[in-house]
Formats: sequence, C-alpha cells, structure tokens
Amino acid sequence: MANWNNLDTLASYQKLEALKGKVNLAEAMTGETGAQRAKTYAVPMAADMSFNYAAKEVDADVLNALKELAEEAQLAEKYEELYNGAVINTGEKRLVLHQLTRGQLGEDVIADGVNKRAFYKEQQDRIAEFAAKVHAGEITNAAGEKFNTVVQIGIGGSDLGPRAMYLALENWAKANDTFKMNAKFISNVDPDDAAGVLATTDVAHAIFVLVSKSGTTLETLTNESFVKDALVKAGLNPADHMIAVTSETSPLAKSDDYLAAFFMDDYIGGRYSSTSAVGGAVLSLAFGPEVFARFLNGAAEEDKLAANKCIFENPDMLDALIGVYERNVQGYGATAVLPYSQALSRFPAHLQQLDMESNGKSVNRFGGEISYVTGPMIFGEPGTNGQHSFYQLLHQGTDIIPMQFVGFKNSQIGSDVDIQGSTSQQKLCANVAAQIVAFACGKKDADPNKTFEGGRPSSIIIGKQLTPEALGALLAHFENKVMFQGFLWNVNSFDQEGVQLGKVLAKKVLAHDTDGALKVYSDLLEI
Amino acid sequence: MANWNNLDTLASYQKLEALKGKVNLAEAMTGETGAQRAKTYAVPMAADMSFNYAAKEVDADVLNALKELAEEAQLAEKYEELYNGAVINTGEKRLVLHQLTRGQLGEDVIADGVNKRAFYKEQQDRIAEFAAKVHAGEITNAAGEKFNTVVQIGIGGSDLGPRAMYLALENWAKANDTFKMNAKFISNVDPDDAAGVLATTDVAHAIFVLVSKSGTTLETLTNESFVKDALVKAGLNPADHMIAVTSETSPLAKSDDYLAAFFMDDYIGGRYSSTSAVGGAVLSLAFGPEVFARFLNGAAEEDKLAANKCIFENPDMLDALIGVYERNVQGYGATAVLPYSQALSRFPAHLQQLDMESNGKSVNRFGGEISYVTGPMIFGEPGTNGQHSFYQLLHQGTDIIPMQFVGFKNSQIGSDVDIQGSTSQQKLCANVAAQIVAFACGKKDADPNKTFEGGRPSSIIIGKQLTPEALGALLAHFENKVMFQGFLWNVNSFDQEGVQLGKVLAKKVLAHDTDGALKVYSDLLEI
Repeated sequence: MANWNNLDTLASYQKLEALKGKVNLAEAMTGETGAQRAKTYAVPMAADMSFNYAAKEVDADVLNALKELAEEAQLAEKYEELYNGAVINTGEKRLVLHQLTRGQLGEDVIADGVNKRAFYKEQQDRIAEFAAKVHAGEITNAAGEKFNTVVQIGIGGSDLGPRAMYLALENWAKANDTFKMNAKFISNVDPDDAAGVLATTDVAHAIFVLVSKSGTTLETLTNESFVKDALVKAGLNPADHMIAVTSETSPLAKSDDYLAAFFMDDYIGGRYSSTSAVGGAVLSLAFGPEVFARFLNGAAEEDKLAANKCIFENPDMLDALIGVYERNVQGYGATAVLPYSQALSRFPAHLQQLDMESNGKSVNRFGGEISYVTGPMIFGEPGTNGQHSFYQLLHQGTDIIPMQFVGFKNSQIGSDVDIQGSTSQQKLCANVAAQIVAFACGKKDADPNKTFEGGRPSSIIIGKQLTPEALGALLAHFENKVMFQGFLWNVNSFDQEGVQLGKVLAKKVLAHDTDGALKVYSDLLEI
Repeated sequence: MANWNNLDTLASYQKLEALKGKVNLAEAMTGETGAQRAKTYAVPMAADMSFNYAAKEVDADVLNALKELAEEAQLAEKYEELYNGAVINTGEKRLVLHQLTRGQLGEDVIADGVNKRAFYKEQQDRIAEFAAKVHAGEITNAAGEKFNTVVQIGIGGSDLGPRAMYLALENWAKANDTFKMNAKFISNVDPDDAAGVLATTDVAHAIFVLVSKSGTTLETLTNESFVKDALVKAGLNPADHMIAVTSETSPLAKSDDYLAAFFMDDYIGGRYSSTSAVGGAVLSLAFGPEVFARFLNGAAEEDKLAANKCIFENPDMLDALIGVYERNVQGYGATAVLPYSQALSRFPAHLQQLDMESNGKSVNRFGGEISYVTGPMIFGEPGTNGQHSFYQLLHQGTDIIPMQFVGFKNSQIGSDVDIQGSTSQQKLCANVAAQIVAFACGKKDADPNKTFEGGRPSSIIIGKQLTPEALGALLAHFENKVMFQGFLWNVNSFDQEGVQLGKVLAKKVLAHDTDGALKVYSDLLEI
C-alpha cells in the first residue's frame, strides 16, 4: 500500500522548493544550448506523438528533484493501485476505473460481482452492434427510414468530452470515409439551447442519446422532456428515437421509453467518461464503432506509458510533475492549453472541466487540511486564433502563465493552398514553433512597449496527424496528468462536492423556500 | 487635460490598499443585511438592464475609496478626452473612436479631414443599402439567384466579436422573423478550418466577407485564397461572391476582386470593431440592418451612462473600479464571465480578447515602468453548463476567482417545458440566483470535504431579455469597463505590441531562416 501524504511533508518537495527560479529560460533556450534542449528534452507518447518540454523552466537539477518527488510520492505505485481496483475515490468510497474502459493494465478488477473490464467491453460491443444496425438500416424510425443524425442530451462530463471528441474527429472521418451521422448536443437547461438545436434538426431522422449516470440530472431530464415534446408534436413516438446511457441501477436502465440502454457505472467519473459508453454511443453512431475502437486503443497505449516508473519515459507523469513545480514552487496560477488544430476547438473546454473539477480542492483526500495551492485555472483556444486574441497578455502581461501547445505535422482533410511559398499547414506549424521560442526567449527593444521579457514556459505535444489514436492518446495523457497531480497534492481528484451547494439552493428557489439575499435575487429575476 | 499617473502614485489608491480584506462577504450577504445589499447595491444599465454588485467585497468604506479613486484618476475626464478625439492610443499615436460608430457623446471629431461620426454612419448606411439589396434579390450571384449564406473571413477582432454577436442574436432573430441568412466564420490558418467550413457551405449561394483592416493579415489573406480556389473550382467568379471590410488605404479598398468594399479605419481597434463595419456587414446581412441599428443603439445608450461622473450612476466605471480592487488590493488573478444564456456561448471568448489584449501590459502608456499587476486572466462558459464543469474549483479551490454573472428573465425563443413545477427558464434563473449566494455565503459542514468557505465575490447583470439593444449595451459595458481599467492602470489599452514577435519569428521559419531551438522545432514539425 502506498503512503498518502501531503505534498509539503515530503523531503523531496522541500528540495524542489529550494530550486525556485533555478532556470533562466531565455538563456537556456538561446543558441546551441537551446537547440540541444529542444532535441533532447522530449518523451515519446502513444500514437507517434512526443511530449517536448525543452521550453519549460527545468534543468538537470530540477528534473532530478522531480524524479525524487515522483518516487517519494509513490506516483507509479498509486497508479498501480488505481488500475488494480483500489478505492482511490475516498470521498465517495469508489474505485476509479476509467482506464478499464479502454484496456487492462493490471489484475482483473472484480466489483459488484462482475469482472469490470469484461463489463465495459460488453457495453462497447453492444454499442458497436447497435450502431452497425443503425448504419445498415436495420434499426430505423417507425417509417422504416434510416436515421441520419444523433443528438446527445447530457451536461458536464456527458457533454464536454464527447462534444470535443466529436469535433476533433468530424473532419478526419469525412476525409477517411468513415463519417456516418451528424452529431449535435443539447446540454444547458436554458430552454433556448434545446429549442435552438431542435429547430435545425430533422427529428424524424434523429436518434437521441440521453446520458445521465444517476438518471436524475435536472438539466438532462428537463431537456429529455423538451425533446419528447418535440417528437410528439412531430407525430412521432419518442421511444422509437431515444436511447439511454446510464448506470444499471438508474431509473432509466429498464425503462420502455428507450430503444436501448447502455451502461456505465459509479467507477467512471463523468469527466473521465469519454472512453466509456458515454462517449461510445454518440461517437460510434457518428463515425462507426471501428473509429471509436481506434480512439480507445490510442488511450490504452498512453495509459501503458503512464505506468512507467521512470519519469523520463513517462510523458504523463513528467507533465504532471512540471505542472506542480510551476504551480507550487514558481507560483503560477493558471495554465493555457493551446492546440494548433481547429479540430481541437473544444478540447480546452473539456480539459477545463477535467482539470479544474478534479483538482480544484482545498482539503486532502482524507478531509484533512492542506497548506498549499492545488489545481490551477485552465483555459485555452486553438492557435493561430488565440495569437490574435489573449496572447498579448501571455507575452507581455504582468503574470506568467505556463502553456501547453499541441501541434500536428499534417492536417486532417489534406486540402490546402500554397500562398507566398508555403501551405496553410506550414504556416500553422511555423506559428507554433515561433511562439515557443518567442515566449521563452523574448526580445530586447529600445522601446519598452516593444520589449518581450521572455521566460514564459511552454511544452508542446507534437503528433503526425490528429487521428482517432492520437486523440485517444492525447485525452489519456491529460487524464493521467491530472491524476498524478491529484496524487501529488494528496487530494481526491474523483469527487466533486463543490457542485452540491448550488443545486440545493436552486431547489429552494424553485420551491419558493427562500429568504434574505436569495429571495431578493429570485425576485429580481422574476422566478 | 487629464493627468496620467501610475495607479500606485495616487493617494486614493493608498487608501484603498489599506482596505484589503475589509468586507467579510459571507457575513455581509447573510440575513437582512444581505437582502438589503441585494436590493440597493445596483446601478441601472441601458436596455432595461441592471448591474448588481451586492455580492462583491465592497461596503460603504470601500465604495467611498473607489469613488475617490475615480475622481483622482480622472476617469470621467479621460473618457471625455477619448470620445472628443484625443490621441489616447499613445503607442500607435491614434485616436480611439469605436464609440463614434454607434453615437456621438461629445464634440465633432475631425480626423484625416473628415467628420468621423459622419464617416462611420455613412459606412453603416452603405452596408444597410447593400444588405437590403441582397435580401431583396437585387444583388445576386451570376445566375441571378439569391444568396442565402454569409461567410466571414477574419481572425481575432474580425472574428471573435462578430461571431459571438451572431450567435447571441441568431435565435432571437429567428423568433422575431428578422433572420435573413445563415452566417459562418473562417478564421484559423489551419487549412482544416476553411476546408471544413467550405465542405458544408453551398458556395454558389454564399457571399464572403473578407475582413482585414490592413489588408495584410496572413491568416485572412491565406483563407481568402482558399475560398477563391473553392469558388473557381465550383465554376464561379470569386468577384461575384466577395465583399471586403477594410481601411480606405488598404490594397483591398479599391480592388476589382470585390462586389463592394466597406470601411473602418485605424481609430477602431480590431477587438473594438463589432459595432463598426466589421460587425456591421455580417450582422446586417444575417439579421437585417434594422437589427444591427438596434444593437448600435443599445451600445450608444450604455456609452452615455459611462460618461456619468458619479460612480453610483455609472455601471461601467463602477465595475472597472471593483475589478481593480479585486485585482490589485485583494490579489485575485483571474475573472470568470458566466452568462446564463446559451446564446452568449462565445461572449466570454470575445471578452477574453477584449480584456486580455487590451490590458495585458507591463509598461505604462508612456513606456514607463509599473510596479503593480494589470489585466487579469478572463475565461468563462455559459451557465448552467459551467456548473457541471469548472465551478468545483470556483467553489472549493485554493484560489479565489471573482465572477461576473449575466442573466435574463426571459428566453429568446419562448419555447419551454414545465417539469416538476417550473419551466426551464425558471430553472436557469434559479441556478444563477443560487450560485451567487452559494459563492458568497458558503456552508459549514461536519465533513470538511463538504464545507464551502464562501467569500467568493460575484456581480450579476440582470436583463429582461437578450435583445439586440441588450446585447449592444452588454458589449459596450465591457468595452467601457476595460477602458476605465486601462485608465486606472495607466496602460495603453488600444495597442497590442505583444503579438508582433511571434509574427516575425514565424516568417523566419517559413523562410527557413532559423537556427538554434527554432530550427529544431521547425524540423520536428517538418516545416
């Protein structure tokens, strides 16, 4: 059994703290030293990708301290306990098994009387069979016509991840002739969300995926009613158009209201559910089950790398450690995720949930005090768009914000134009290369307004192309990074008690059971 | 002439600093005190909206200090200088005239030999005439068929603002029978962006709006070529399908490649250009010129309020002052913008540019040193979605992140369902009311993991409905807030020198004129 201790009780962390400001990044990244770093400070990832951390504020001393920290914090042992089925989610007393939805790294995990890997695989297979029948026209609407659109109804983890993954592979699938159905998403309880999506959807040929683990999520059930209303108004039977993704114990599981139900369970957190049935249903329907399987394989390969005890062969663990150095020793409050790929337009929004909901905690995994900062703020937009937006602050603002770039050598569609001697893809890649060096090295200028201090750290994940495997590896990389950081901070990354109070008060407002300021706000909003 | 001084040289700022931690927000917002604050800490905005700051960490003392600060920093005088045509953009030695695109608050502003208000109004009228002809089928494609789609090609300020405004009014326009044409946007130099949009666009019936002030923006010109290629491949003449929005001095202005050209100028910063021809062309084509005019009216009304010298009657100035108190005295590093309106899904991304590009600066407006922090990080997603995502960290994370909520009493479409005794719109509003109180007051619990410390400040802008006027007022509110904060920090909010270095280095990469780390990254990305 691993020892779970607060970060600041570890001797190796004290050592790391002594290395605050150790690296002058502008110097380190200049000239031949910089070239050497860019070549050697890199770790292979799954799916032919590489995690390059040359432009991070690390050197041999810092890296050595991070290595010691990884060992003392027993990161590898904790991960092993997790994938072997320990109760890592201490708050809710649950196993944490999202890795099992895409592979098996350790022993058989038996819970609730079943082999969990077999259970998740069975759901994947059931979805594959269902999707194949939909695509083949064996499962149709009541008029015997094929479905052409899939609409996911879910919020949070049932929305952000699947939506980001859909957008990430939409053009790839079209270019590779595996695109099967358009996907749309309804999430917000704002009635304009459902009404807006439904107004542009041919509901007679749409299949709706209701996603709620508990079967009780307010937004999702409300939006289900919205959709059912629309189907009934169109003269259709909702039960012919809806499937459910839920837990076997939820009220939705055995309902006749659905064409089919596919299952997840309590060991898959919502924000970790993209590789479970939650992502599986919509992505298999949209792109075919083979594409979803390839996505899972990429994630499984990355999970394997994450089990490596040597931090220099473990991109996920190393990324996590550098992030903790930046957050706790260097004192940076945020991290920007900047994919140079329009297909990853909503990937930062997914990571925002993944990271901030997992590690935005103020007590340790046992409810004890901690006296250091935990999860940073996460935000981002695709490059080059961000360059024309908030990069000004990243370059010349008063706070340093570490960055994580992602770039691919090739586009997904392959259609391109050659302007001024280079393709758009080359321009895209040239920009991300340029940004890394610009942020790290800066530039002196006689005009202080045109001076760049440099010293702004970034890493880059470089891939060949954003394929299903690469996307799976990328997703798993960040899931594992967040997990390792949670281990380091000694927090429970797998519950979310912070979302409860708002729910309780909202119910009071709706029941008109309020006083004080809450009553005034209710009145102001005319509820 | 106003005096431009660094924030920390002002006597009133020293006073404000002494008020760090003055308000116990949880206490202040509890019981009758909280009710009184919620009722009285509010300032009317344009378009029937209200800025409520009851849940901010202010009291009579803090507000009084902010009032003194506003006076000593001469915020009202500086705004007056700005709208009367002073050279407020010191770096580029330019006037700052975006308010003139929607109204005139002061004297006639004559620059480059013309009356600038007349110039902007003329462009608005020319666009209105053009859009009306397109809608009437008087301007058509070569086959004499009506255009049904408008595609904006632009990046940064030519993209984020117009895109956010389009999404904000799309469903409103549909519900109010003013919807004319679908709008799409191409921005990223990633070839998959243009290729993906073009693949789902009926180019034969599309009109493309090329937006570049200088006529030299790399991404935009590259994407123009992409579009021209697609038009030619479809057997169409690009000149029949493209219009330009640019400055009169740009190479695009007099080119025969465009059906028409509409003008902005150097006094309209990209991120402040939504109310100029940059937003005008696409929004007038999409929703009709009347809707665009209503949007401008809302902004103009808010601009008028911003001229009020009394901070308690000036929502934009007060919001700015509270933000500076939070940033510089309380020491918070970020601000979350959280609209409870799916239509405002990209509004936070626009504000991210507006705020971070304007005030992410490390030298003052004269190039002198500053020794305090400036612009915060800005991020956000619509509620209730965010509640199921990053709100965990906002409630229970180790950093306090001030919030700006936006909520409307009524939806845009009006289609709704009643579930469990309330409509979706009521649930939406109940949630935002609940969040304000949950964040401010928190909740004690025997389980530390379920404890909410509270003391997390927020404001809310409450409106009746997200109409064109309300959207204009909302946009102007934040533009003016950012402007006043720039005045307080004594920075130039209207240039963006921080984006230059990356451009220079990217050009070197494309010219293969690199060494050191830059060459290695270029090789790794196979440029």
